[in-house]
Amino acid sequence: MTVKVAIAGCTGYAGGELLRLLAQHPEVEVGALTGRSSAGDRLVQHHPQLSAYADRIVEPTELATLRGHDVVFLALPHGASGPLAAELSQDTLVIDAGADFRLESSQEWQAFYGSPHAGTWPYGMPELPGQREVLAQTRRVAVPGCFPTTATLALLPAVTARLVTGEDVVIVAPTAPSGAGKAAKAHLMASELLGSATAYGVGGGHRHNPEIRQNLRRLGAAEPTVSFTPVLVPMSRGILATCTAPLASPTTADQVRQAYLEAYADEPFVQLLPEGQWPQTQSALGSNMCQVQVTVDEAAGRLVAIAALDNLTKGTSGAAIQCMNLALGLPETTGLHGQGVAP
Amino acid sequence: MTVKVAIAGCTGYAGGELLRLLAQHPEVEVGALTGRSSAGDRLVQHHPQLSAYADRIVEPTELATLRGHDVVFLALPHGASGPLAAELSQDTLVIDAGADFRLESSQEWQAFYGSPHAGTWPYGMPELPGQREVLAQTRRVAVPGCFPTTATLALLPAVTARLVTGEDVVIVAPTAPSGAGKAAKAHLMASELLGSATAYGVGGGHRHNPEIRQNLRRLGAAEPTVSFTPVLVPMSRGILATCTAPLASPTTADQVRQAYLEAYADEPFVQLLPEGQWPQTQSALGSNMCQVQVTVDEAAGRLVAIAALDNLTKGTSGAAIQCMNLALGLPETTGLHGQGVAP
Amino acid sequence: MTVKVAIAGCTGYAGGELLRLLAQHPEVEVGALTGRSSAGDRLVQHHPQLSAYADRIVEPTELATLRGHDVVFLALPHGASGPLAAELSQDTLVIDAGADFRLESSQEWQAFYGSPHAGTWPYGMPELPGQREVLAQTRRVAVPGCFPTTATLALLPAVTARLVTGEDVVIVAPTAPSGAGKAAKAHLMASELLGSATAYGVGGGHRHNPEIRQNLRRLGAAEPTVSFTPVLVPMSRGILATCTAPLASPTTADQVRQAYLEAYADEPFVQLLPEGQWPQTQSALGSNMCQVQVTVDEAAGRLVAIAALDNLTKGTSGAAIQCMNLALGLPETTGLHGQGVAP
Amino acid sequence: MTVKVAIAGCTGYAGGELLRLLAQHPEVEVGALTGRSSAGDRLVQHHPQLSAYADRIVEPTELATLRGHDVVFLALPHGASGPLAAELSQDTLVIDAGADFRLESSQEWQAFYGSPHAGTWPYGMPELPGQREVLAQTRRVAVPGCFPTTATLALLPAVTARLVTGEDVVIVAPTAPSGAGKAAKAHLMASELLGSATAYGVGGGHRHNPEIRQNLRRLGAAEPTVSFTPVLVPMSRGILATCTAPLASPTTADQVRQAYLEAYADEPFVQLLPEGQWPQTQSALGSNMCQVQVTVDEAAGRLVAIAALDNLTKGTSGAAIQCMNLALGLPETTGLHGQGVAP
Repeated sequence: MTVKVAIAGCTGYAGGELLRLLAQHPEVEVGALTGRSSAGDRLVQHHPQLSAYADRIVEPTELATLRGHDVVFLALPHGASGPLAAELSQDTLVIDAGADFRLESSQEWQAFYGSPHAGTWPYGMPELPGQREVLAQTRRVAVPGCFPTTATLALLPAVTARLVTGEDVVIVAPTAPSGAGKAAKAHLMASELLGSATAYGVGGGHRHNPEIRQNLRRLGAAEPTVSFTPVLVPMSRGILATCTAPLASPTTADQVRQAYLEAYADEPFVQLLPEGQWPQTQSALGSNMCQVQVTVDEAAGRLVAIAALDNLTKGTSGAAIQCMNLALGLPETTGLHGQGVAP
Repeated sequence: MTVKVAIAGCTGYAGGELLRLLAQHPEVEVGALTGRSSAGDRLVQHHPQLSAYADRIVEPTELATLRGHDVVFLALPHGASGPLAAELSQDTLVIDAGADFRLESSQEWQAFYGSPHAGTWPYGMPELPGQREVLAQTRRVAVPGCFPTTATLALLPAVTARLVTGEDVVIVAPTAPSGAGKAAKAHLMASELLGSATAYGVGGGHRHNPEIRQNLRRLGAAEPTVSFTPVLVPMSRGILATCTAPLASPTTADQVRQAYLEAYADEPFVQLLPEGQWPQTQSALGSNMCQVQVTVDEAAGRLVAIAALDNLTKGTSGAAIQCMNLALGLPETTGLHGQGVAP
Repeated sequence: MTVKVAIAGCTGYAGGELLRLLAQHPEVEVGALTGRSSAGDRLVQHHPQLSAYADRIVEPTELATLRGHDVVFLALPHGASGPLAAELSQDTLVIDAGADFRLESSQEWQAFYGSPHAGTWPYGMPELPGQREVLAQTRRVAVPGCFPTTATLALLPAVTARLVTGEDVVIVAPTAPSGAGKAAKAHLMASELLGSATAYGVGGGHRHNPEIRQNLRRLGAAEPTVSFTPVLVPMSRGILATCTAPLASPTTADQVRQAYLEAYADEPFVQLLPEGQWPQTQSALGSNMCQVQVTVDEAAGRLVAIAALDNLTKGTSGAAIQCMNLALGLPETTGLHGQGVAP
Repeated sequence: MTVKVAIAGCTGYAGGELLRLLAQHPEVEVGALTGRSSAGDRLVQHHPQLSAYADRIVEPTELATLRGHDVVFLALPHGASGPLAAELSQDTLVIDAGADFRLESSQEWQAFYGSPHAGTWPYGMPELPGQREVLAQTRRVAVPGCFPTTATLALLPAVTARLVTGEDVVIVAPTAPSGAGKAAKAHLMASELLGSATAYGVGGGHRHNPEIRQNLRRLGAAEPTVSFTPVLVPMSRGILATCTAPLASPTTADQVRQAYLEAYADEPFVQLLPEGQWPQTQSALGSNMCQVQVTVDEAAGRLVAIAALDNLTKGTSGAAIQCMNLALGLPETTGLHGQGVAP
């Protein structure tokens, strides 16, 4: 089986990461690589790290260049996927790495994004209950946000086992600036971030907040509430989400661990670490693995779960390929792996 | 006025930071600098950054070398301050940068440190209500831990104004490895931390936990509970504590801000940032300032307060000098300042 | 004595560093702080690390706001200093942190900068032979570039003592991106530099190249040739220049060391480290010190000298204040010091 | 074909990197993983990033555990490979990632390593002229040092084309601390290196110096002399070697470029970048590619060549696998690739 794949928005970080991973995918032929202002450039100018594609030329992001592919990945700025997706054939597998089709609630979309809601596509998180079956049947996938993936995988077993209700969840997540994309912005300059940590989107305003709550509801939380604070720290990739939630009833660390062991026993890209070993983002670097650890803080009455992943791999482009595999009927792990580039 | 100062444990990070700051202190003459295994070494071998003291020789940490000074700073490993302090004259101002005398509860001390409790000294946090008066009268000061200082300054106005009760506080604090000291340890090697974030002391086990709760009680919290997670991130100095707590009753962000403005109007080393501007650790680098910002997350029903400081300056050695000034009757800010080395 | 100082271009990195240092200067009153697009802003928006000036308002960069000051620092983009300086009174001490007036050769200026040459001012490097006398008499100072300062201080004793001729000098200098200023640029984004090293200006094209050669000529080199390669590395501040040059005749490491000891015995801001100890940039962080070490590579027939400094302090704004002190007849070290913020 | 592979010294950085790469190698079955003090540990304790091997147990480094494998990789401290290798069958392919068998000259070995010389094995750098043939016939391979690989690939075309003689070569190479291994050492602690650059082994003393000269001789240099200075910078992996050498005769940048294009046209793991684009270490992260760029500094009369690679991949373990492929008659690139984990 050879699948012909196009990437719209190939010069950004998500596009580059898709290409890095697809270069190892045995069933894929990389077709059109498109961009807007970059059309006509050699790819090596934008992604010198991708030697396999150094001589490829960026084509314009147009229907004509994207047609004739089995799979089209959209790695575009928020708001740009909707119009383009509408033009693509319903037979084409379209996988959107952006936010446009993630939220079910148009009201939440408007409150957090402020533009018209493009719609809702099947959500590309295979670990959610029943979601693999959905993804096996679809030609449209909305890839989850990087923070929602990290936080959801940290809390999934606890919520589904009703160890926590999903209320009063507190998430603080140190993250790499690469999640904010490649466009030059003053506050993302190296001089501003090197040797420094700073929070942003504080107080409930971050756009991944409604998506995290949506996921908790899918796991069975009736009325989830989430205090979520991302923190920029000086690393090139990675998210480490510390997630705490009040225990629904007295529970031991052993009981919690058991729930996590059961929930994740067969997950190919979630690794529950041995007791006492806590995730570190470098372990996930460049891999599609999400590392998880959990314990109970008895004095505080809270479960504490921590997950680490690579925001561009399992947090974006690796998840996109995982979903592609499912939608194409390929083994889910094809072309992906769980060995991080550490140290 | 010239105050003669000795430092026991001059070769570690706290000792070096004391020397860096004292070099700018107009009322201080630096006397004996002592160490154990380093006795006899030139100071430049241990602190090449301190050109003013390059030719000083490290003396042995003994009563004989420490006698005859007005002030003795103890910058020793936990547990080492008690025996030494007992030998020093009651007329000497002794300021302990370690943990030995911070906790009031011998039970908490034993639970978290496991050794006999040396006692309790006046706590070196001038910002606590009434504490400046205490510090003005004492010859013994226990310098607070770096995380307790950050978290306490983030929450102080909210607790004293009863906006939060101090129950169910959640603190997550990215931090620099320098807080763990200078001794070579495998998990603190550059290769392990560069480009990576990792939590430790998760689930209530960190030794600063009881100290944070003790401070919240001093601010009026009846039964504080704290979930505290420190996170190692790749920066040389700094702590950024994200602190959230349930609002005691419906409160607007404006009301919260007003409480913080009032509480910190006259504090020389706490800076409430303009609305919408969030602390970054680089702003505090090398300075004695703690930056604070606060808001309300209405959907989550939580106050979110964030503080940033330099763990070695306001978090340790700067606070020690601030306390020295108070105890000696000098202006509190003598030799200290609030200009960070940024970018 | 109170000197009234204005800074044109206060919102950039050089301007912020001037303010950080001037806050500790006992003879200075900070007057107008001016900017172009930032006029009307509160300074805290641009420099949250400068708590002493948080409430200051940025004024427009105009003659009217700059008049009436004893000293005007120009911290402007290259090419902007010339026109403004021409308007300022000859009685005002004008210190230009930019490149406009550094080069003596109009031909070199045009070859490397491409714009009309504004002229040549006394060069603000007090360590050059005879230069303190020149600086004591002038109302105009051109502050050296950060790389020329590092490289010149690394090689000065060797060239003046004729241990090397200044021919075939090779300099490679890892550096922080803060030297490139605050304007948002794609290649200076955190994601591009974190965890990565990359050279630029390779092959002789860097604008500091003619300035380095000019300095070597001032030290006695007849026909200096310099291969200079700067390398961006992920640190917020600092330059580490490795400088090698063929030995003019067989010379021992001891002889070389002796020349350096003599040359730098009385320099307040150059520190020759003990034998065997090599400079590290963190030792200079935030201080006005330049650390130097030197040896001989016998097999290669080359002298190897390494210097480290903070590109924004001794490399720019600290040097500017050092020159101000000289020009005003103040002790040269007033308001400056040599204690680095390490670790 | 399935090749059974053992790794002696699996818990260090080179051993972990071998495992990371071998997990993607289609012809390899990973057999014994051995260590000394770590024998009996689960591998996840040492390499949490290697999820595929999380449950493997470290076996003792003994002949009994290493027997019965087709390939044995030695990833041991310098000096430990010799005795162990002597015991292994001559039919076993033994690939030493350490230094023991790299040098041809026992005199150089003793001068730089100080211990008895174990011998000389075929040198694992396929890019050297004629070396692929040698490697295809051997059961013993000495993997090159990381700096010699970087510097040699930077200079190879210039030396073989006689554009430079190999005399008066100057190499300065910013590098990651992971090259120094995993053992805890005070000067490699995160606090000492974060935000700082520092040189070491200055003046000709670095152990990779004779190996670089040996390589230059292999390329045709009659009497190479090399000034080599490594510089520790805060990144987790990577070497960026800036290599300059006097031009043997007047040569244009175009002529130089042509020589490089020809030399590297068919090399699978050397990438000559487009003109004007300079290597960055993040482009090579986790990949087996070495990026190269070259130009001429006319004023300085020097060729300037820069190479970047991942010190643990192409610099150590990737090269080891590349050599294994050659020695086993597999396609040279099996299980390796040239896509870096950037940003």
